[in-house]
Amino acid sequence: MPEVVILINLKTYNEGLGQRAHRIAGAAEEVAAESGAVIGICPQPMDLHPLARHFEVPVFGQHVDGVAPGASTGHVTAEALKAAGAAGSLVNHSERRLTLAEIEASVRACERTGLSSVVCTNNVMTSAAAAALGPNFVAIEPPELIGSGISVAKADPGIIKGSVEAIRKVNDSVRILTGAGIQSGECVRIATELGTDGVLLASSVVKAADPAAVLRDLVSQL
Amino acid sequence: MPEVVILINLKTYNEGLGQRAHRIAGAAEEVAAESGAVIGICPQPMDLHPLARHFEVPVFGQHVDGVAPGASTGHVTAEALKAAGAAGSLVNHSERRLTLAEIEASVRACERTGLSSVVCTNNVMTSAAAAALGPNFVAIEPPELIGSGISVAKADPGIIKGSVEAIRKVNDSVRILTGAGIQSGECVRIATELGTDGVLLASSVVKAADPAAVLRDLVSQL
Amino acid sequence: MPEVVILINLKTYNEGLGQRAHRIAGAAEEVAAESGAVIGICPQPMDLHPLARHFEVPVFGQHVDGVAPGASTGHVTAEALKAAGAAGSLVNHSERRLTLAEIEASVRACERTGLSSVVCTNNVMTSAAAAALGPNFVAIEPPELIGSGISVAKADPGIIKGSVEAIRKVNDSVRILTGAGIQSGECVRIATELGTDGVLLASSVVKAADPAAVLRDLVSQL
Amino acid sequence: MPEVVILINLKTYNEGLGQRAHRIAGAAEEVAAESGAVIGICPQPMDLHPLARHFEVPVFGQHVDGVAPGASTGHVTAEALKAAGAAGSLVNHSERRLTLAEIEASVRACERTGLSSVVCTNNVMTSAAAAALGPNFVAIEPPELIGSGISVAKADPGIIKGSVEAIRKVNDSVRILTGAGIQSGECVRIATELGTDGVLLASSVVKAADPAAVLRDLVSQL
Repeated sequence: MPEVVILINLKTYNEGLGQRAHRIAGAAEEVAAESGAVIGICPQPMDLHPLARHFEVPVFGQHVDGVAPGASTGHVTAEALKAAGAAGSLVNHSERRLTLAEIEASVRACERTGLSSVVCTNNVMTSAAAAALGPNFVAIEPPELIGSGISVAKADPGIIKGSVEAIRKVNDSVRILTGAGIQSGECVRIATELGTDGVLLASSVVKAADPAAVLRDLVSQL
Repeated sequence: MPEVVILINLKTYNEGLGQRAHRIAGAAEEVAAESGAVIGICPQPMDLHPLARHFEVPVFGQHVDGVAPGASTGHVTAEALKAAGAAGSLVNHSERRLTLAEIEASVRACERTGLSSVVCTNNVMTSAAAAALGPNFVAIEPPELIGSGISVAKADPGIIKGSVEAIRKVNDSVRILTGAGIQSGECVRIATELGTDGVLLASSVVKAADPAAVLRDLVSQL
Repeated sequence: MPEVVILINLKTYNEGLGQRAHRIAGAAEEVAAESGAVIGICPQPMDLHPLARHFEVPVFGQHVDGVAPGASTGHVTAEALKAAGAAGSLVNHSERRLTLAEIEASVRACERTGLSSVVCTNNVMTSAAAAALGPNFVAIEPPELIGSGISVAKADPGIIKGSVEAIRKVNDSVRILTGAGIQSGECVRIATELGTDGVLLASSVVKAADPAAVLRDLVSQL
Repeated sequence: MPEVVILINLKTYNEGLGQRAHRIAGAAEEVAAESGAVIGICPQPMDLHPLARHFEVPVFGQHVDGVAPGASTGHVTAEALKAAGAAGSLVNHSERRLTLAEIEASVRACERTGLSSVVCTNNVMTSAAAAALGPNFVAIEPPELIGSGISVAKADPGIIKGSVEAIRKVNDSVRILTGAGIQSGECVRIATELGTDGVLLASSVVKAADPAAVLRDLVSQL
């Protein structure tokens, strides 16, 4: 079985801030150890350093600017993410869109600093375009399903299938995640059966009363 | 000989505004008729309607938003460009960058309304990505050479060659323009010999004392 | 009675494009002549030149960039608006927000070219801030009421009153418009009674079967 | 003598990252204790939490988004800054410009969470506008002098004087900083003599071989 990746985006939810981020990271560490899945966590930037110090799970930025270190106040450089202990970063999340030139620069900045880049996209064509930039991951998230409670894996398997096909024509080796509405082990199983390497998800873990239980369910059908 | 395309971007230069835009369009019409080259012109939006009415040359928008008509004050829709007589539009020019999702939406909006889309890019990787979106044209313009007076065709033929190769892996049929520093017939000849379909240029025509003479030189080695 | 201003934003509505824009401008011209109100119209940029040529009513841009003419592809300069016959421009409409520095630059560009600037704002504090920039008009539009069919004049007179007070502390001479949900003569009367100089509105005129009838109603209680 | 504020923006300089940020914070702590000046530090976001834990000096964000916690991946909320131990945040730095509505929302978010807001501006008019939003500080930085090595205090005292006057007409109590090219005790003295409360500076401290020595010089003429 190829390695499955579960990436938890804490967004700016209160439920994923500070000590509550630590609690989710702890759950991720536990379930990753039990299951063999790779479970990563994307905290808010001020939580990144403490989480990377205290937990074994890979910690990702939610956003990275492809600028070189210097006169760029208020930006997040790949160098700073790396120094804080990050393993990678989301790029171009639907809530933090970038220009095409910026996405490419962010992917190159990750490459240069040894971070994994996860470029988020919204449909088949943009997924193919993102794959052409040579990131480590493309994460397809139809915006209309994000936070909807309706799983892309069940509601729109066609967009996953179409994206996988379009991506593979352009790039053989990029890994593919799907997101939007992912909430159960069935969603994860369908996503992997459709040719992806895992999922990117947020509220169903972050807002859960028992994040470890949700994570256990997510990896249960692998 | 395949059809060669010369696309003149008037930017917001005073030399390309109002009656001065008409003068350049007249020169384009004349040289296009003489040479058989396709010479298009990208005026400022308020000049688009009068130019499209008075001249035979194809008129392009400098920018198009992929939004549907409606509550989007201050945007330029494909529908409005079409209604004004445009043949197409630049998308994602280096002076008007868009997010990846917006570029894709602009290309689709052009498709839907029968406009030619010309997606501008800055390097090999973004050119391949743009090609994956299925526009009519990709126009490669290394930003460091724009307005430099140094022709990309002479200074950096490698970026053109690399882009053509990367684009062709992704998309067989998209047409390719090159830009940045283009100023003579030799530049145009080199650009086409490297596998592109023509050039996108601005200041060397717009600021010329005699635009027709510059245009005649540009098509002289085809 | 001080001069009342009715400013009609055509947005990118299909109902306000091309010949349909001409129809609305004709209605505006007619009702302005009958009533003595100033009725302006903000068309899409490609319609601006023909409308300014054919009608007596003042024509405004929906957006203006404060950049100097030159290498700014896809931007709308004050110089180009002026050359096309515009009387002024909206700045910072809620659907086309600008940075503070850009708003100030746009106001200065309007000043320099003899255009009236209408800076749009969303609440009491931003209205005071906009007034401090010295534009010709501040137009207050609570975003939650735009296009809602609920008139700001009736639903939230407090925001109008508060904004007028806050603006007057900062700037004695700027004229004030209110917008969002404006649809009847009663709205316009309330708006002027609260100390403003008129209204900025869109859908209730643009989408009307009989724009002249709506305009007649709007000025009926003055 | 009123309290003087020295705010050090580490930008994304390598010289201000990780352990090197700790070194500068240590110098700030030392010189603040010696001089009685308030010396604050604005690190990159991943360094904020460790610095706030280890040092007594106030730590500021370089940027804050005025969004409520929730679905805003890649944003920096006031709540997260507060939780990490920040005392305040820059808002609208020239390298991270925001829309007027966003600036106002950021100032309100700081207010709501008990953070000091420092709104950066570029000229006299935008300084007055920023003051109308009711932040704790306005920091005036003429962009052409930032990083120039030419001090605004010496090169353009008029912009400081003009800004102080324009700000005071709008807001009695906001504190005022000046920035751009500040590098010596003389600059700080002039800035305070012109009616401001201190300075915002970056490279002259961050890139110094001996930051404590530069800081000692900065407070030497108070």
